[in-house]
Amino acid sequence: MPDDPGESFVLNTLLRDAGPGGASTLRVPPGDDAAILADGLVLTQDAFIEGVHWDERFSGADVGWRLAMANLSDLNAMGARGVWAMLSIAMPKPLDRSWVEGFSQGFSQALNQVPLIGGDTCSSPGPKALSATLGGRLVAAPILRSGASAGDEIWVSGQLGAAAGGYYGIASLLSAFLRPMPPLTLGPALAERALVTSGMDLSDGLSQDLHRLCAASGVSAQIDPTSLPLPAALMDRSDPVADAVGFGEDFELLFTARPQDNVAVRTLGESLGVSLSCIGHIQAGSGPPTLGQRAWPVGWSHFGTEAPC
Amino acid sequence: MPDDPGESFVLNTLLRDAGPGGASTLRVPPGDDAAILADGLVLTQDAFIEGVHWDERFSGADVGWRLAMANLSDLNAMGARGVWAMLSIAMPKPLDRSWVEGFSQGFSQALNQVPLIGGDTCSSPGPKALSATLGGRLVAAPILRSGASAGDEIWVSGQLGAAAGGYYGIASLLSAFLRPMPPLTLGPALAERALVTSGMDLSDGLSQDLHRLCAASGVSAQIDPTSLPLPAALMDRSDPVADAVGFGEDFELLFTARPQDNVAVRTLGESLGVSLSCIGHIQAGSGPPTLGQRAWPVGWSHFGTEAPC
Repeated sequence: MPDDPGESFVLNTLLRDAGPGGASTLRVPPGDDAAILADGLVLTQDAFIEGVHWDERFSGADVGWRLAMANLSDLNAMGARGVWAMLSIAMPKPLDRSWVEGFSQGFSQALNQVPLIGGDTCSSPGPKALSATLGGRLVAAPILRSGASAGDEIWVSGQLGAAAGGYYGIASLLSAFLRPMPPLTLGPALAERALVTSGMDLSDGLSQDLHRLCAASGVSAQIDPTSLPLPAALMDRSDPVADAVGFGEDFELLFTARPQDNVAVRTLGESLGVSLSCIGHIQAGSGPPTLGQRAWPVGWSHFGTEAPC
Repeated sequence: MPDDPGESFVLNTLLRDAGPGGASTLRVPPGDDAAILADGLVLTQDAFIEGVHWDERFSGADVGWRLAMANLSDLNAMGARGVWAMLSIAMPKPLDRSWVEGFSQGFSQALNQVPLIGGDTCSSPGPKALSATLGGRLVAAPILRSGASAGDEIWVSGQLGAAAGGYYGIASLLSAFLRPMPPLTLGPALAERALVTSGMDLSDGLSQDLHRLCAASGVSAQIDPTSLPLPAALMDRSDPVADAVGFGEDFELLFTARPQDNVAVRTLGESLGVSLSCIGHIQAGSGPPTLGQRAWPVGWSHFGTEAPC
């Protein structure tokens, strides 16, 4: 559910007019990272608009990479692997051919072996406007936001706040901002081994995303701020924890697992070469998650008002 | 293949970088109205950009209707029925809520019972930018552009030039321009009864689309201009045949059938309430189709330079 009231209005209007027909088509209700059809096809779609989702720091190749990875990350969060992609691309005139070539290379590199099977191309009288749709396949039961139970451990992959550091000008973190690397083998591997009780990707930051996961599961959570995997280069910032939980764009995986699976989860991470951190645990109740002695920053907005993305 | 050289560059660049991976995913090669996956899922996607695909004559409801129908028409042309839809919608701020409400109603009305199962919503610093992806299912062997043989009869549904008339200000034809009504039962019914050898939808006009069908089939064609089903209201225009074959946007079905199936095709059209006209026949060779004594207008562009769409 978007936080922008305008976007919520658009979504609610569309869902109201669409009626209940989707219920029999979908295996799980709307509201997860991707839609799952009754036949097991997993579908996700992201729109990318110049000046909204990227600024002048992004090359065409960065935009292509990021658009593909944002969609692949949604599939990963469901425990699915990408099987095909479609792309709509609207470009202003005169056509910037070198941007298109860079975009195409970044997009196909990120898609790796996922084939582009169709789409649409047209002109735009305004900004570049892109939309990609990806189809994926589950390898086992899907990972949903709604499966966390009291006592489960809370895990995140990679580092939190690297994209924030890149955005705020820390040179060593710039590539994390421009070229996110979601752990695309992790979601399917966790699902295949039934090591996960719930999960989603960290596109909006832990502060919003954990709150969503808890709301979907009907639970609360306690996070140990000292256990958050922060990049060393972030430590010069005035409030690295705020950057790590409030900014988003890391496209890491947030998931919960039973405490008795702690070693199996760690072992799996090591075998995949994905660093995993246990950052807290799920607790009963419905209040906002807690972050040690700090108030949980529920109201933090995605990129804030300064954001280009 | 788009006619705009810039769009062709974008498409060729994307296809080159995408590599050959799609071949094993697709049942038929790219280049038809929609992609068909090996498992029989049919996929189509259309981008709609304000100022490119519609002008101020279109209400939000008209745009929603048209976006859904453009995609449904592609599925119809393959002999498939829609089973789900996804939508990306980028809206400028401040949000025009009444436009969104109209759009949503027109979109869902045109989709009829096809459920909207996901998508993305965001803001746009420029024009409204939309992209819809539809999934469909075949009911029988797909209708392709490549199956026409010498001797086949050439058929079109409905009337040709009604959208052109509406665009050029003929009041009685305005609704055909704003709210196209593709014959969505016809494609699946023709496929189910194996009454069709090739087909596609008439989105760009007979002059371009028949040429594409002939090229895909390795044949030529002869059209009898007196048999074209023109709206009576178009007769005051200086060259109604040019409007009928050159403008497009009618979203009618163009298809070929064996001469011995002539009566069966007519009977099917009557049973579905879809008017069908036999407008010529396929002939051997590879030259452009002929239109009686007229030169075939191969070079006519879609909407011309004056076009908003």
